Amino acid sequence: MSERERNLSGSWQLNCPVLLLTTSDCVTLAHGEGGRLSRKLIQECILKTLQPVSSLCLNDAAPLPRSERPLAMTTDSYVITPLFFPGGDIGSLAVYGTVNDLAVSGARPLWLTLSLIIEEGLPLAVLERILESVAQTAAETGVQIMAGDTKVVPRGAADGLFINTAGVGELMDPVPVGPDRIQAGDELIVSGPVGQHGIAVMAVREELGVEPVPQSDSGSLFPAVENLRHKLGARVRCLRDATRGGVSAVLHEWAAASDMTLSIEERLIPVTPEVRGISELLGLDPLHIANEGTMLIAVEQGAGAEAVAELQGLPGMSGAQKIGEARERGIAAVTVRRTLGAEQPLADPLGSPLPRIC
Amino acid sequence: MSERERNLSGSWQLNCPVLLLTTSDCVTLAHGEGGRLSRKLIQECILKTLQPVSSLCLNDAAPLPRSERPLAMTTDSYVITPLFFPGGDIGSLAVYGTVNDLAVSGARPLWLTLSLIIEEGLPLAVLERILESVAQTAAETGVQIMAGDTKVVPRGAADGLFINTAGVGELMDPVPVGPDRIQAGDELIVSGPVGQHGIAVMAVREELGVEPVPQSDSGSLFPAVENLRHKLGARVRCLRDATRGGVSAVLHEWAAASDMTLSIEERLIPVTPEVRGISELLGLDPLHIANEGTMLIAVEQGAGAEAVAELQGLPGMSGAQKIGEARERGIAAVTVRRTLGAEQPLADPLGSPLPRIC
Repeated sequence: MSERERNLSGSWQLNCPVLLLTTSDCVTLAHGEGGRLSRKLIQECILKTLQPVSSLCLNDAAPLPRSERPLAMTTDSYVITPLFFPGGDIGSLAVYGTVNDLAVSGARPLWLTLSLIIEEGLPLAVLERILESVAQTAAETGVQIMAGDTKVVPRGAADGLFINTAGVGELMDPVPVGPDRIQAGDELIVSGPVGQHGIAVMAVREELGVEPVPQSDSGSLFPAVENLRHKLGARVRCLRDATRGGVSAVLHEWAAASDMTLSIEERLIPVTPEVRGISELLGLDPLHIANEGTMLIAVEQGAGAEAVAELQGLPGMSGAQKIGEARERGIAAVTVRRTLGAEQPLADPLGSPLPRIC
Repeated sequence: MSERERNLSGSWQLNCPVLLLTTSDCVTLAHGEGGRLSRKLIQECILKTLQPVSSLCLNDAAPLPRSERPLAMTTDSYVITPLFFPGGDIGSLAVYGTVNDLAVSGARPLWLTLSLIIEEGLPLAVLERILESVAQTAAETGVQIMAGDTKVVPRGAADGLFINTAGVGELMDPVPVGPDRIQAGDELIVSGPVGQHGIAVMAVREELGVEPVPQSDSGSLFPAVENLRHKLGARVRCLRDATRGGVSAVLHEWAAASDMTLSIEERLIPVTPEVRGISELLGLDPLHIANEGTMLIAVEQGAGAEAVAELQGLPGMSGAQKIGEARERGIAAVTVRRTLGAEQPLADPLGSPLPRIC
């Protein structure tokens, strides 16, 4: 069994009770070719499942409700393997991910598009389960699915299922000014333990068999962003969900944008025992591992304690911590004071050890 | 050489002068993992190439300019193989396709997102060439690329390159009322010869070696939609680009939406000699073959001649024709009067013989 087959069957076995499926229970090429089967798949599976959270129809484009506020737009494709992981699946991830991209940009997420690239042979039960997850997550986050697209590619031309979500939201006052306006003294806060998503996906994909099973942090950041906006207003400088590349990638991007040195302290960084254990075992630094419901926040000097207190009072954010601050640019763009006391540059890796975690 | 490898190398050879590439000239997994190589790819290749038509940056979401008009939104993923075909490539197709979905919905295309799913090993020269095509097509159609995303999947997990574009446009007055309002007597018009895109892609993919090489009709429909709006106003009932499933799929969707019988005449349907020749050779009906720059239009009774004259005066639309009309629902949803005189139901195939043509 090839790695691909193992991953696919692994992902299906993980949550799908139906293992022996006939061809008619699977997506076929004809489902993607614009004829009767396409319309049947769209009407009886996709539109029906998404109906509570969508105004989808067979038209080419959907009118958006009027908005009095300025809008923002984003897009993300999701290629995660396996399709189901502890704490989520590709469907919930695709909604949370785009919701979070809008939220950290200062926008209230409102409207999403949903585009599916399906490999021929994907069981319809798997597709339905993922669409149900999309619908549930859209309902939870208050977004509407406005338009969609479905393509089917022959066996071997894609791995199971890829999803693209693009999103539009309303920018809320005040919009965070952005990382280029970070100043010396600004405080750096992380909204929860780091590295949970990447470790959860890797543990199930590589069948590490650790107990307790590490869980992804996949979830919506919008409520937390809204709370910070209400309490701190313009004292929130910028926010970013720490996805691919982890907290480290965000720090390096912000350091480059602001020309500051961003300094963090290792002992302040929240890490769960599971993530710490697996990271040490595999020689990974949790700062480089992806999150899907955890963000980095830069706030004005003096606002850090209030921001942390606010976050810690929110569901699932009790682990929020101040982890460092911005300083005038020194020798390194990002530094970390290790637990033993030495301050070192934080590596900016070429890539990461974990492909396809989102 | 597997079919996949043949398709890939075929598509690259077709237009790419660089055949012997070292690994460093190809996209690697690390280009998609959020670290330094990701930022390098995004900044030095993607942002640079798209710069003239984009306000892309490394932020999570982009603010949209204000608009006084109501908006519409759409999405499409493109999985065509080969990546380059006579008359276009996956980059131009991804822009035209989303521009056209907005145009036929009555919207002026304004803002696009661009999301890439790249297979490890794709030559950077191929990626750059496709991005240049995206930039050129965006400039031609007047759309801005507002946000982007790049994922890289391991060799074998995707076939070369998939592109998603989502789009937002301003709805223009009057917005076509839609296919559910088609009435008996409404006239059906096609904007040009049918089946050119599907035949062009198949001819190159299957190496049919026919001369002259059939060309795709891939192009923007917005100028034609705008002209019809100015000249005919609310007498345009609805429009639809006849992509997957061809003219037949649109007719069947419209017949279902309106509960009318849509009747066309075979002798009136414009077909190029190349498309006719290859279709007859392979036993295909051009009505079922995909187009990427040809639309079906329903106009009020009596407005057909004016619409056809208007279209025929536009560049590339000299082949526009009235092909039929709507009648009270008879036995069949869609009928075609064949050249020899008999009126028959037009088949509504389960799928189509041409996967991955868009």
